[in-house]
Amino acid sequence: MNGSIIRYILGSVLKIEAVLMLLPCAVSLFYGEKEGLCYLAVAGVSLLAGLLATRKKPLNAVFYLKEGCVATALSWIVMSLCGCIPFWLTGEIPNFTDALFETISGFTTTGASILSDVEALSYTSLFWRSFTHWIGGMGVLVFLLAVVPMSGGSNMNLMRAESPGPSVGKLVPKVRYTARILYLIYFALTIVEIVLLLVGRMPLFDAVTTSFGTAGTGGFGIKNDSITGYSAYNQWIITIFMILFGVNFNAYYLILFGRLKKALCMEEVRYYFLIILASVGLIFASLVQTTGHVFASLRHASFQVASIITTTGFSTVDFDMWSQTCKTVLVLLMFVGACAGSTGGGIKVSRFVILFKTVTKEIHSYIHPKSIRKIKFEGKPVEHEVVRATNVYFITFVLLFALSMLIVSFEGRDMLTNFTAVAATINNIGPGLELVGPTQNFGFFSPLTKWVLMFDMLAGRLELFPLLLLFHPAAWRDMLPRRKKKGEE
Amino acid sequence: MNGSIIRYILGSVLKIEAVLMLLPCAVSLFYGEKEGLCYLAVAGVSLLAGLLATRKKPLNAVFYLKEGCVATALSWIVMSLCGCIPFWLTGEIPNFTDALFETISGFTTTGASILSDVEALSYTSLFWRSFTHWIGGMGVLVFLLAVVPMSGGSNMNLMRAESPGPSVGKLVPKVRYTARILYLIYFALTIVEIVLLLVGRMPLFDAVTTSFGTAGTGGFGIKNDSITGYSAYNQWIITIFMILFGVNFNAYYLILFGRLKKALCMEEVRYYFLIILASVGLIFASLVQTTGHVFASLRHASFQVASIITTTGFSTVDFDMWSQTCKTVLVLLMFVGACAGSTGGGIKVSRFVILFKTVTKEIHSYIHPKSIRKIKFEGKPVEHEVVRATNVYFITFVLLFALSMLIVSFEGRDMLTNFTAVAATINNIGPGLELVGPTQNFGFFSPLTKWVLMFDMLAGRLELFPLLLLFHPAAWRDMLPRRKKKGEE
Repeated sequence: MNGSIIRYILGSVLKIEAVLMLLPCAVSLFYGEKEGLCYLAVAGVSLLAGLLATRKKPLNAVFYLKEGCVATALSWIVMSLCGCIPFWLTGEIPNFTDALFETISGFTTTGASILSDVEALSYTSLFWRSFTHWIGGMGVLVFLLAVVPMSGGSNMNLMRAESPGPSVGKLVPKVRYTARILYLIYFALTIVEIVLLLVGRMPLFDAVTTSFGTAGTGGFGIKNDSITGYSAYNQWIITIFMILFGVNFNAYYLILFGRLKKALCMEEVRYYFLIILASVGLIFASLVQTTGHVFASLRHASFQVASIITTTGFSTVDFDMWSQTCKTVLVLLMFVGACAGSTGGGIKVSRFVILFKTVTKEIHSYIHPKSIRKIKFEGKPVEHEVVRATNVYFITFVLLFALSMLIVSFEGRDMLTNFTAVAATINNIGPGLELVGPTQNFGFFSPLTKWVLMFDMLAGRLELFPLLLLFHPAAWRDMLPRRKKKGEE
Repeated sequence: MNGSIIRYILGSVLKIEAVLMLLPCAVSLFYGEKEGLCYLAVAGVSLLAGLLATRKKPLNAVFYLKEGCVATALSWIVMSLCGCIPFWLTGEIPNFTDALFETISGFTTTGASILSDVEALSYTSLFWRSFTHWIGGMGVLVFLLAVVPMSGGSNMNLMRAESPGPSVGKLVPKVRYTARILYLIYFALTIVEIVLLLVGRMPLFDAVTTSFGTAGTGGFGIKNDSITGYSAYNQWIITIFMILFGVNFNAYYLILFGRLKKALCMEEVRYYFLIILASVGLIFASLVQTTGHVFASLRHASFQVASIITTTGFSTVDFDMWSQTCKTVLVLLMFVGACAGSTGGGIKVSRFVILFKTVTKEIHSYIHPKSIRKIKFEGKPVEHEVVRATNVYFITFVLLFALSMLIVSFEGRDMLTNFTAVAATINNIGPGLELVGPTQNFGFFSPLTKWVLMFDMLAGRLELFPLLLLFHPAAWRDMLPRRKKKGEE
């Protein structure tokens, strides 16, 4: 294990975070709040620590998948630990576990909050809270790759560990340019959303923070009733942008380079829209039956489906009061999640397509046992290794889910609360049902449960294995600096 | 597709069922009940149909996995359709869907009942109801293989389709002898249980029917309160036998031939007992805290864990009233299920062991990407194909589960009822939680839900693929008799 490169990456992450924390300081200055001082202090300490850690260049710039995963997992933990301190210092979230929960929920774009009264926060903290979504959405390491020139050719292992989906496609041969293009698209789409929300007469602060929450598919609102209070126009804008941020970013890359037709042919994106349409249809039918309002039902159905499948977690209505069919559809969508290569969480549409094709292939193999047909996806045969990895991912997911359910059950809450609390965190959504429904929050849980859910949020965002790897003894072996052995570089 | 062999097998199954139906007729005679006449009539018609179908020997005795699966699925459907008629004819279950539900629940050893007052049934029907568990436990096709000389060397495909577990081991080279040994062990264990229950002063009729329910890991009780009313001694006897019938029958075969040490080393059996011990421990700790009764808590915890992990479904207490931890443990056990090669249902311990090892191997592969270590199970490396099939099985299971949940949700019951109703049927357990808890029944569900649950019971018992295969168009192609083409035998 190459410890020095990991130290160097962690240091760089701290430096980036320090710079990013200046933004809430500026907000503080604008609104004349004293909370900005806390942010400034944390940024200063963080910068100092980052500079110290990156003072020495790594001894060895080569790193493998193992280092990529460990570096990613540790980066996210360090980033969250550092990012939660201002909440705690300002006294706005006096409990450290709660502050960490809120920050991890922010960076992992979950949006599960422990706050019962969001509106009591300062503008500074509200901004930082939503900004963590934007940072976490595309990933801080992707950002690092985009801005810091890294030596060594294995940067792909960093990107692979942080980016969601069964297989990471490089858009262009150089990882650095891929990372830049991704951030460019991300930035541009966010700006467009802010502008469109401003057109709908949303105040600037609300438009910016809400767009951060949409872009990262996070879901922290700055109002206690989430998005309920905004106009129908703005709700529709948010719906559309949630769906857009759940699309595989490869599609935008293709459109950007004039290959619109190829973008429209992307199998994953087609299934994604198909699932959205079917779910909206089912929920709309149920809502219209109960309420009789056609337009409102369509708006709420579309908003909630978009919010859950993209794992954003905003709400315009308390869907915990909806019919069982609606709730079951939403719970199933929690697991489906958005497209791979988007900012959304969940298991991902492409994984489900591959899983579903695996099952139909298996049935086919009973009829033609000697057939060696390969599964096709996006027009190409899927490598055996990708199918295997997808299967293992799904299995690991379910086992981790079951274990989390068991530990959370010790607290004695009802099973649906436990089930949806785990589902909403491991899939990075935010609200669940019952006690963790859209009008509730996660504050009442015991510290044990909160730690389990924090773990689940990180595991979900990092696609399980980078985080699980930290529990493997070999990940820690040789991490400490040591003398060079002969024959080692 | 070889249609004539399937016709022949279905005919044989009908003949066997006709003969087996004479047993409830005998019971009827003993108790002087008129219901026996209905059973006699159905037996007669069934025998006639069977004779007609087996009049002509199959044109072609060769059959492949495809035919094995289709024959198995159709056998179970025909068997259930024929077996439900007496309930309907006697008027004891006047609704046909309900009668079919009860019979499928019996044959698949689920034990989910639509009856609110079981004690109102005649002895004849009570006997037949419990006897279906015994028939379904080991499987009617295994019985067929044991008694009917079948030509052709591919009988293994029948056995493979009906027997549970990731890979079917032949105990001895000849399938026929394997089937006979299995039935011998099954029969002997049942007799021992009956005797031990009689020693505990249980009436003969109760001892026989309860033993049928235990042996098949079925769970139909003949009392409205299931096993609650029997003595602590008898409850312990049932606990022990439930656990015994959940053990891989290979272990008994080994013991029978003096290889006790090898039997005790079986990895699956060890994990099975480990899971039982851990679950009893957790539940016992929770019960003792609430009630303070050490012995009763231990008895109820052991009974319920044994009942659920073996997918029997008997109850000595309304565990729906237990703490959330207890209920979560039980719900998780529903999915674990018993050992492969036992009469129990669920996903099976061996599959979970393989799944768990797949996950740890995956984590290991992040550390050592070039390692090609194979998973070991029962001291031998697991074939790649078995790992793949286990993964696909698990995925298919979860997808079918989700689809069932969705359809059942249309009825508007609460989500925990829906979840556990599907879990209790697809895993062949019986009772779930809330509206389908141990003191409740499945009678209130709509016909649509009942049909979905019937499908799940059959899918669970036949390990998914044989039943799913019926929906593949190729399974029906060439099923009708046709003229021989040139070059075809």
